Amino acid sequence: MKDLVQSVELGVSQRKRVSGLKNELVRVGLAESLCTYVMMVFGLGSVAQVVTGQGEFGQYISINLGFGLGVAMGVHVGGKVSGAHMNAAVSFTMCTFGRLGWKMLPLYVFAQLFGSFLAAATIYGVYYEAIHDYCGGNLTVTGPKATAGIFATYPAPYLSLHAGFIDQVIGTAMLLLCLMALSDQKNKPAAAGSEPVAVGLLVLLIGISLGSNSGYAINPTRDIAPRVFTAIAGWGGDVFRSGNGWWWVPLVAPPIGGILGAGLYKVLVEMHHQPEQKERLVEEFEERLALE
Amino acid sequence: MKDLVQSVELGVSQRKRVSGLKNELVRVGLAESLCTYVMMVFGLGSVAQVVTGQGEFGQYISINLGFGLGVAMGVHVGGKVSGAHMNAAVSFTMCTFGRLGWKMLPLYVFAQLFGSFLAAATIYGVYYEAIHDYCGGNLTVTGPKATAGIFATYPAPYLSLHAGFIDQVIGTAMLLLCLMALSDQKNKPAAAGSEPVAVGLLVLLIGISLGSNSGYAINPTRDIAPRVFTAIAGWGGDVFRSGNGWWWVPLVAPPIGGILGAGLYKVLVEMHHQPEQKERLVEEFEERLALE
Amino acid sequence: MKDLVQSVELGVSQRKRVSGLKNELVRVGLAESLCTYVMMVFGLGSVAQVVTGQGEFGQYISINLGFGLGVAMGVHVGGKVSGAHMNAAVSFTMCTFGRLGWKMLPLYVFAQLFGSFLAAATIYGVYYEAIHDYCGGNLTVTGPKATAGIFATYPAPYLSLHAGFIDQVIGTAMLLLCLMALSDQKNKPAAAGSEPVAVGLLVLLIGISLGSNSGYAINPTRDIAPRVFTAIAGWGGDVFRSGNGWWWVPLVAPPIGGILGAGLYKVLVEMHHQPEQKERLVEEFEERLALE
Amino acid sequence: MKDLVQSVELGVSQRKRVSGLKNELVRVGLAESLCTYVMMVFGLGSVAQVVTGQGEFGQYISINLGFGLGVAMGVHVGGKVSGAHMNAAVSFTMCTFGRLGWKMLPLYVFAQLFGSFLAAATIYGVYYEAIHDYCGGNLTVTGPKATAGIFATYPAPYLSLHAGFIDQVIGTAMLLLCLMALSDQKNKPAAAGSEPVAVGLLVLLIGISLGSNSGYAINPTRDIAPRVFTAIAGWGGDVFRSGNGWWWVPLVAPPIGGILGAGLYKVLVEMHHQPEQKERLVEEFEERLALE
Repeated sequence: MKDLVQSVELGVSQRKRVSGLKNELVRVGLAESLCTYVMMVFGLGSVAQVVTGQGEFGQYISINLGFGLGVAMGVHVGGKVSGAHMNAAVSFTMCTFGRLGWKMLPLYVFAQLFGSFLAAATIYGVYYEAIHDYCGGNLTVTGPKATAGIFATYPAPYLSLHAGFIDQVIGTAMLLLCLMALSDQKNKPAAAGSEPVAVGLLVLLIGISLGSNSGYAINPTRDIAPRVFTAIAGWGGDVFRSGNGWWWVPLVAPPIGGILGAGLYKVLVEMHHQPEQKERLVEEFEERLALE
Repeated sequence: MKDLVQSVELGVSQRKRVSGLKNELVRVGLAESLCTYVMMVFGLGSVAQVVTGQGEFGQYISINLGFGLGVAMGVHVGGKVSGAHMNAAVSFTMCTFGRLGWKMLPLYVFAQLFGSFLAAATIYGVYYEAIHDYCGGNLTVTGPKATAGIFATYPAPYLSLHAGFIDQVIGTAMLLLCLMALSDQKNKPAAAGSEPVAVGLLVLLIGISLGSNSGYAINPTRDIAPRVFTAIAGWGGDVFRSGNGWWWVPLVAPPIGGILGAGLYKVLVEMHHQPEQKERLVEEFEERLALE
Repeated sequence: MKDLVQSVELGVSQRKRVSGLKNELVRVGLAESLCTYVMMVFGLGSVAQVVTGQGEFGQYISINLGFGLGVAMGVHVGGKVSGAHMNAAVSFTMCTFGRLGWKMLPLYVFAQLFGSFLAAATIYGVYYEAIHDYCGGNLTVTGPKATAGIFATYPAPYLSLHAGFIDQVIGTAMLLLCLMALSDQKNKPAAAGSEPVAVGLLVLLIGISLGSNSGYAINPTRDIAPRVFTAIAGWGGDVFRSGNGWWWVPLVAPPIGGILGAGLYKVLVEMHHQPEQKERLVEEFEERLALE
Repeated sequence: MKDLVQSVELGVSQRKRVSGLKNELVRVGLAESLCTYVMMVFGLGSVAQVVTGQGEFGQYISINLGFGLGVAMGVHVGGKVSGAHMNAAVSFTMCTFGRLGWKMLPLYVFAQLFGSFLAAATIYGVYYEAIHDYCGGNLTVTGPKATAGIFATYPAPYLSLHAGFIDQVIGTAMLLLCLMALSDQKNKPAAAGSEPVAVGLLVLLIGISLGSNSGYAINPTRDIAPRVFTAIAGWGGDVFRSGNGWWWVPLVAPPIGGILGAGLYKVLVEMHHQPEQKERLVEEFEERLALE
């Protein structure tokens, strides 16, 4: 037994030496960037198709499916390495409730911004001719042939800034409240292995229920990186001026909503979990087995 | 073994002392309120989006998805604590068939009403500007710009009260009949962990098949709380007068339908289950293990 | 141990005495009737909603979902008792390939016809006012306000009888081919517990891919019982004359298609399965464990 | 133990003798042909329905569902026998990364071409009257009543060849990147048994996000076989001339995209997996069990 452990450890240390990257931070950062990239390529792609296809290639529900299933694929891609937050409001909430070290937050935010920006560039590349054919080469943020909404979110014409702020707080609160439930092993969590699809259905649902006011960003890093990309790529400063200077709302409101939603679940449900007798006996039994 | 049980019980009693809420009733009530709230925010939100978006942000099927997936998320949120009935007709049927104590019924009904009312208020807050923009500030129950249907159900113009009553009985009967099957471990139940999605698909299906007559309330607490909210919030007494005084039908018909549907399943399928020999041997083996 | 077995057997025999129905045939027949009823209520209901709602309450895809998810719920309801065929072509194919005794076939067919007929009556009752409001009380099989298509299938105007026959053979062949794969434990079957949803997705898919020629009956008992119901209920003999006497095609073609599809899977895939060495060792190991 | 293995091997050799087909290549080839056939019948059928139904029998999203769920059923049909690639770009990538022997590639490609061609013929047979009714018997590749797009993919009018090439590279890269994640047991793979549906959702998602430029072939064998079929069946040489000679792009770009996407996943995620201590201990424990 002792020999076995030693030889196993030897193998591991060898593998360590040959491994390309020993740095845990780089490992997590790469995974978080890649899963955010995947989610955003699928999400933004679905908007590009609906906008430039003028109803022939999908409708609003295609966008809901694009972001929903995009999130599911993102979770498959980054899942066990970085946790696949793909959303600074999720990372921030996880830090607040002790599920992620605060020291990791800048890395997560940077990796998400990087993946999100790259995805915006990819979708602009893939749909370059479609976008220019649709708008006649005139890249605008508002008007009948506006295309900036393919990349970042903009509020509906009727929406005031403070109502939009509430919209983003509530939307992100519902996201985090349900994410807490989906991962609460003492309640009715998503079945093992089906978490990616469950989270995807949740995002699909938020799009169907809480999307029409301002495009359900509910995610700072999803929104700001493509907005900056469009500012550079030809849409100009209007992407920051449009909607009464809407751009900061998806940055500030989601983290507040995230803490509100996750906190509500904790206070109303999680805090009251009590170990059931049967559960305890099983645990005890397993411990005894382990000790023997 | 005896020592083990004692020490375990000791640990539990300690934990009980530090637990924030010792009251089982409060624990269950909070979970039932929260899951009803979650289901209703998603469900009502999807209707608000379709109505105020005038076809641009989803169609009838979005509402089916909104309530279906909303129910799935509700089951994740309340699942193992309260059972996540979110529907007085379900609670009533569970009491009738001995799966819930009658003493618990008032708590369930009150918690559901509370969550449902709060959800109506939340959706009115989130879509306040959208609703007022859509109807020009004129909150009506009938007419081309009616918005009361975002919150409570109203019958189609052609529907008589007695046909609507039958509609609600049949709809709720199908709900409870299938719920009994989904949880019948001796038949082909929903896979462990996938119950929330299975129940959500069932509600989606009822919306697709039995929804157009009167909006498939099939749930007294889902319907009455938002109706009272709209009466207070500006729609006035018309919410009770409209549709020939429709309001009482979703209160009275669903419990009758629930008992009918669950009863049918019991009489036609469950009563005839017979323990198979292999099953019995397994049971017996487990009993022996438990005794030793 | 011996005492335990005796007491268990005693309990069983007591249960047997109190059980309402001892007859296995009645047990299976009731379950097969009920699951067919459930599937058909949801399926026909979705068509009724689309037809009478004139596009406001769902589109063609709602019907695909209605039958697809309706089949899924039917499998949950009848699954472990009768196998939930809900389709005489499935039962016939199962008999042909030895998975069901031929003696059981009349019972399955009768139970399916009974459930299907009752479902047609239920949907006519639930949508009685909607149908009469839609067609002005004039129940017709063809023409702009035809409503017979809510209940039974009718071919598209361009379709000849022999092309329709091929359409039904191919549709049912695809159904049975995939059903064989979904239940083949030596290949990649549906995950345990997810069979109902997998079969539902298959039926949804057939509706999306092979539905527009003649309404994808692919099921004799699903089609003839509602057709007879409409003949009695007011649509008259036209339900048999319409479409060049279409009515017999969904009776004759599906069993042929079923055997073709299941046979193809057997000849091309199942026959070539070979026990892998590892699999065999596991089996052997389990046998040894069982013997010791 | 030694006796046991010998007797088992003896049994196997006997079974081998009675087995209908001893040739592993034929076994794999038949399964790969059948699953490609199944996927393509469902996929092409959904396009045929949308095109000839003129919006009455489904919309663009039906096609996404047709190919998505068609792929899922294909994986069920061929899954454990051939791996159900159904796509030469997938087979090529698997060879490149050592998951399939290069010697097997021609067999896979031929089997896929055969299944794909047969599916095109089947769908032409099933929808023969629908297609001729729709286009008045005039089989064209372009124009308002074009029907060649039912079978092979054609680029949008605005798309240049080089942009289409990039479109196909990116689309296939996203496919393979996510396929690698879905099967990576050290990350967050699809749950055991749910792989077919997970892969189907991925293809659905690509159709929703990256489909409008050129119809998301992302698969050489899916595209060329039906194209050749249409050339023979009456559409003529235009199927190769149309879209500036588009036909070679879905042949050349997908394998490049496949290697790019799978390579990205390997370099950014898979290479950095490290065995965790707990995992190692479990492995070691299992090894000990196996040795004893």
